[in-house]
Amino acid sequence: MSANSVLLDFSLDPTRINDEVSRKDIVKLCKEHLEKYISGLKITYDMLTEDGYLCILNAPGAVITTIRFFNQGLITVNIEYFRAESEAPKITFEQTRELENSLVQNLKLNHGQSLPTLQRGPITKYFPTADERVIEYDIDKVLYDKRSDFQKIQIVHSKSLGNMLVLDELQNIAEADLIYTETLMRRGVENYKDKEICILGGGDGALLYELLKEEPKHVVMLEIDDLVMEACNKYMNSICGDVLEKRKSDNYEIVIGDCMMYLNKFIKEGRKFDYVFGDLTDIPISDTPTGEIWDFIRVILESSFKVLKPDGKFMTHGNGVSCPESLQMYEDQLEKLTPKVNFTKCSAFVPSFMEEWVFYQVQRVPEAAASV
Amino acid sequence: MSANSVLLDFSLDPTRINDEVSRKDIVKLCKEHLEKYISGLKITYDMLTEDGYLCILNAPGAVITTIRFFNQGLITVNIEYFRAESEAPKITFEQTRELENSLVQNLKLNHGQSLPTLQRGPITKYFPTADERVIEYDIDKVLYDKRSDFQKIQIVHSKSLGNMLVLDELQNIAEADLIYTETLMRRGVENYKDKEICILGGGDGALLYELLKEEPKHVVMLEIDDLVMEACNKYMNSICGDVLEKRKSDNYEIVIGDCMMYLNKFIKEGRKFDYVFGDLTDIPISDTPTGEIWDFIRVILESSFKVLKPDGKFMTHGNGVSCPESLQMYEDQLEKLTPKVNFTKCSAFVPSFMEEWVFYQVQRVPEAAASV
Repeated sequence: MSANSVLLDFSLDPTRINDEVSRKDIVKLCKEHLEKYISGLKITYDMLTEDGYLCILNAPGAVITTIRFFNQGLITVNIEYFRAESEAPKITFEQTRELENSLVQNLKLNHGQSLPTLQRGPITKYFPTADERVIEYDIDKVLYDKRSDFQKIQIVHSKSLGNMLVLDELQNIAEADLIYTETLMRRGVENYKDKEICILGGGDGALLYELLKEEPKHVVMLEIDDLVMEACNKYMNSICGDVLEKRKSDNYEIVIGDCMMYLNKFIKEGRKFDYVFGDLTDIPISDTPTGEIWDFIRVILESSFKVLKPDGKFMTHGNGVSCPESLQMYEDQLEKLTPKVNFTKCSAFVPSFMEEWVFYQVQRVPEAAASV
Repeated sequence: MSANSVLLDFSLDPTRINDEVSRKDIVKLCKEHLEKYISGLKITYDMLTEDGYLCILNAPGAVITTIRFFNQGLITVNIEYFRAESEAPKITFEQTRELENSLVQNLKLNHGQSLPTLQRGPITKYFPTADERVIEYDIDKVLYDKRSDFQKIQIVHSKSLGNMLVLDELQNIAEADLIYTETLMRRGVENYKDKEICILGGGDGALLYELLKEEPKHVVMLEIDDLVMEACNKYMNSICGDVLEKRKSDNYEIVIGDCMMYLNKFIKEGRKFDYVFGDLTDIPISDTPTGEIWDFIRVILESSFKVLKPDGKFMTHGNGVSCPESLQMYEDQLEKLTPKVNFTKCSAFVPSFMEEWVFYQVQRVPEAAASV
């Protein structure tokens, strides 16, 4: 079941409103055109607003249409009704487009736009890109839905992406996202054979699974949220294999806990790695590199270099290419880091993000060069 | 400028409405939470609907919120206000998500969803996938906007896709779409050297441009809409080069007219091709393979085989993998075709479509085999 929202909008020369094109004309025309699809429309309410006019039309079947005029030269039309799974839409997208075109042509409006019908209900289908554009996913099932002490965890099924992990209502990784893991680890570029590796986060198990194929000496993974691993082990085996089945094996260990605590323990013990993977939070989208998350990012970077061998690498994901300001802020933090580091970056289109994503490889500047 | 629409929805056990969770409670709580971001909210109207209840809240700055209760167990909240280019949003997506979470937790609702703020106005940003899901594009400019005798033609600029041709409000091809043309022509699989080729449609010039790199003997392109070529020649040179600059050259000719008329002319003349490209309309999304467009598709296929050499190939684009029924209908048409044909297909993720697209290669069954 869903509440269907059919949204149209129009723009016109603002001087035409109230004059050549009266509100009444448009409401009358909307009503006439809508009646091709929805019968029995009646205006039940209208009001003047600070910047225009609003009117509500009601039709049998509880189809409620709101028409709003903005004196700045915009009109929005929102049609909303309940639709059971088995019911046909009361107005199709094709009909919405017809309605839009006939209004634009009849009223000589500058521009019209119709959105595909939004389906609002118990299955979340709408997720944002990094730059907060809306993307509707072809999600047809919720397979797992629990709240852990740390976050809301869902596994949903997408027709095109397979099962997808959703954390706090943000798309995280899908079965179609091998490219994400391969770009994060730079498969074919980096050599992991016989290396010591530490993963910070990585609860979906995909990175651990792919790294183990490269025959490293040992991987330790520090993940705080047991429930994420439970969910992925049940529904995401095509990307994590069976690595989440057990906590310890000859060549890997999964430690459940706060990665900062364990990093500090490793620092004290003098334990060193060839690679540390930051598979934690994304680079935040913010105006300044301040606040709790940025502090966390800086501490993670500093601590990681304390457990990295001199030529060790810190590998991490950044954010979408659509957020150059945030990526720049992250690079600024890298510039200021002690020890002095260099970085390279690369990017890949990640299917479940529906956009190009940036990944960083950070390495200590050799002592000799740093002192110059 | 845009009308910003902030949409939230919630689901709850329908038996709880009017009882444990009263409409009044929810409206009161929504109001309280909204007031963190929008001050001075007042209920200006409410009504019982056939399937629930609707109420309108008005706030200074003409921020109008509609809350609707569906007895089936859904609540929708729509916040709408005008926003000038220079203005900050009145409620950010982060705040919308906070509002959603606090309502879900305070009222113990089953589920909540917040959409990234929709921006409705003179620049069309929302386009559908083949299965009518909404995708918001990062479009920031309209470069060309004209209506020809055949269609509405726009060239818009997307930050991630470059310039994009939009025909009748549907995304057609973008500068980032080389993969589309290369998959349509199966670059590296088919050999076009010294071949005779006919393109039906193809007004964006991309296919002609890429084919000419393969040194064919001659390409004739039959495009009905001069204005599409004018627009692409001005704004899409990274995908069409300079092939639309002139109508005729040593190795190609662009004919402006109805491709059916010219195909019939070629049939009469006995002119034959090694390849015919159907770069016209997509396979329609319909319940049955009937109607004007399906008739057109069948006639195009039949006529194309009349101008193809016995071992010639008809190459065309289909539709999104998300529409298996429509693709199946097309394949059924191929099965019924005279002469008898075989087909192969392949697919590629087309950046500007934001989905995997299917392409067909159709070839006559050799006489000997067909008669068995």
